[in-house]
Amino acid sequence: MPSWMRLLCSWKMVLRHDAMKIVCLGGGQLGLMLAASGVRLGVGFSFVDEDRHAPAGRLGSLLDPRQEAVLEAHLSDQDVAAITCEREDVAESLLGFLEGRLRPAPDVLRVTRDRLKEKELFSALGISCAPYQAVAGLQDLEQAAGRLGLPMVLKTRCGGYDGKGQLVIHDAGEMAAAWQAMAPQLCLAEAFLPFSCELSLIAVRSLTGEMAFYPLTRNVHHQGILRLSLAPHADADLEGQAKEWVGRLLQHWQLVGTLAVEFFLCQGQLLANEIAPRPHNSGHWTMVGCRSSQFDNHLRAILGWPLGDTGALGPAAMVNFIGDAPEAGQLAPWPGGWLYGKTARPRRKLGHLSLCASDAAQRAFLVQGLAGWPGVWLPPDLDVVCRGSHVGWR
Amino acid sequence: MPSWMRLLCSWKMVLRHDAMKIVCLGGGQLGLMLAASGVRLGVGFSFVDEDRHAPAGRLGSLLDPRQEAVLEAHLSDQDVAAITCEREDVAESLLGFLEGRLRPAPDVLRVTRDRLKEKELFSALGISCAPYQAVAGLQDLEQAAGRLGLPMVLKTRCGGYDGKGQLVIHDAGEMAAAWQAMAPQLCLAEAFLPFSCELSLIAVRSLTGEMAFYPLTRNVHHQGILRLSLAPHADADLEGQAKEWVGRLLQHWQLVGTLAVEFFLCQGQLLANEIAPRPHNSGHWTMVGCRSSQFDNHLRAILGWPLGDTGALGPAAMVNFIGDAPEAGQLAPWPGGWLYGKTARPRRKLGHLSLCASDAAQRAFLVQGLAGWPGVWLPPDLDVVCRGSHVGWR
Repeated sequence: MPSWMRLLCSWKMVLRHDAMKIVCLGGGQLGLMLAASGVRLGVGFSFVDEDRHAPAGRLGSLLDPRQEAVLEAHLSDQDVAAITCEREDVAESLLGFLEGRLRPAPDVLRVTRDRLKEKELFSALGISCAPYQAVAGLQDLEQAAGRLGLPMVLKTRCGGYDGKGQLVIHDAGEMAAAWQAMAPQLCLAEAFLPFSCELSLIAVRSLTGEMAFYPLTRNVHHQGILRLSLAPHADADLEGQAKEWVGRLLQHWQLVGTLAVEFFLCQGQLLANEIAPRPHNSGHWTMVGCRSSQFDNHLRAILGWPLGDTGALGPAAMVNFIGDAPEAGQLAPWPGGWLYGKTARPRRKLGHLSLCASDAAQRAFLVQGLAGWPGVWLPPDLDVVCRGSHVGWR
Repeated sequence: MPSWMRLLCSWKMVLRHDAMKIVCLGGGQLGLMLAASGVRLGVGFSFVDEDRHAPAGRLGSLLDPRQEAVLEAHLSDQDVAAITCEREDVAESLLGFLEGRLRPAPDVLRVTRDRLKEKELFSALGISCAPYQAVAGLQDLEQAAGRLGLPMVLKTRCGGYDGKGQLVIHDAGEMAAAWQAMAPQLCLAEAFLPFSCELSLIAVRSLTGEMAFYPLTRNVHHQGILRLSLAPHADADLEGQAKEWVGRLLQHWQLVGTLAVEFFLCQGQLLANEIAPRPHNSGHWTMVGCRSSQFDNHLRAILGWPLGDTGALGPAAMVNFIGDAPEAGQLAPWPGGWLYGKTARPRRKLGHLSLCASDAAQRAFLVQGLAGWPGVWLPPDLDVVCRGSHVGWR
């Protein structure tokens, strides 16, 4: 069919009337799943994304941030009930324009997109994290090595994710090359601490001030990318500590929306690592493992609606499809399977599968059944991990 | 924002690339919920509907059936993986055009949109139903009264739903006026049998021949409109009988898709009443009460994918919002709440709420809590009904 005819066929889409409209900065898979939470209640979405094939385009219109006048007109439309985001790297000019209107507030993004500011906030709020030092040049790096010891991790302050923008320095001879690889970006050096596993906690805070916390989740990475999440991670002490700290962040910012915090578990103690002020990959299991998913609750939070139940319905797991993914037909019988519609590339997140089991043994059995699926990596001692052990991998 | 700017803002929607495309005849709430099942796997939808505000427009493009050339071009697009329907009243010209391509097949719709043909098929397949007679004039009606006795029900053969197109004749003096009200439509007279309740069974059959059956559901009507469904209706004998009959229909048609059959329970025996060859209002509870909803499985069936689990997760209920509906915010904390985005009118289905409880008592408690919600009608002896009694109402 020629494209003009497609256009003709689709013209009515523009005329649909949603009960309520939300604009979301970013149109990736997080935006797609957020919009899916709005469908049943007539909450419609527009997404600000440069990529005209962005995943969320399935569920809403895509706005090009480079067409500034059109975008600003759209953001100023009185029909827009709320403006939110699904990524941190929002242009400062746009943040400035949305001051007082973005949920969460622009200041939250200004901190969470900068690893140094995150660490400084952890320190200011009494939240434990690995020792760190700002690095703006080779001299800083050498000084950091003296203070933090080797090995140590060098990270860019901004822009890194999924293992990008960071490297480990094992001995002093690697220092110059490491700085060469990062410069001229501003960096952060961090002590390299042996941790037994990574955990994350996701919380929501509504416009009304109501707060809710999901159970602690255990995350397993491979080559710097999240591969497997298991929840709930049943350790009441750790969960209590994590909730206390995340609650402190929510209160500090009077945050409206979702906050995900990643922790390392080091010698039995939590160390805060990173903050994401949005729904998070490690919370996808909530779509089948809780009555109200992180996306459902993000939507409620930014609209000032009562929050839904965040309790776990059973032992849940989430497996990412990285670089490759099963066909839709293979995934179809699983209610928690998602394909983002992105072109396959190495290390790219293309979809995931969440499941909720009746007990930990069944969960292990179900996850093991995904071994060999396209894009799936499972830890060699999966059975131990699924039973709740704290042994970890990188 | 002026409409040209909205158009500009939305132009990219046309360019989205779904992994797979489906065309659905009808764009009502059933189409909306069917499309919602496709979102996570990248299955995109177009809907053929005259109403440019049709509910399914939230999740796909709307095609005007009056623009025949455009529609036929779209239906012939080789990217279309399957063509299905969410209503029975499809124009014969369109059915003819889709011969061999529509799932379910046009012949299924030709029978199920005509009450007389349905009854004749029940009889041919040995499925019990109320005694009936075709009525094309007053003389037929008088003859029917002699054979079926009074009171009897006069129904139009085509087009009736939600209590429309039918009336009860109590005595011979009402005969002429009754025919006057229906003429010149072809009708059907049916014996008026005292039934204790209405039940329905929903089944799916895949392109591969695989079949699956949902648990028997009990339906409560008020003023001819479905108000409350409860499932599973735990009566193994009745369920076995219903599955056997519905299986016979699936096999007879080699049906591809979903089939819902409504039954009356008369003196302990099932009598088939109506067939809908599509997902059905009395199956909405499967969206929270089963791992795979009727919409999930309809999608799988028409694409030839393996069917998902149809077992009940617990005692479930569905309450319709008729003529009025709660605000989105009131409904938001319920994972099974839907608003169709239709303008409120008396007797119109505007949304529903499904819930799944841990036991029958909790279900009764939760349903009772909806008393007084806008658009909700509950039977006076709700508690008895929720505990599984067979006492019924009209």
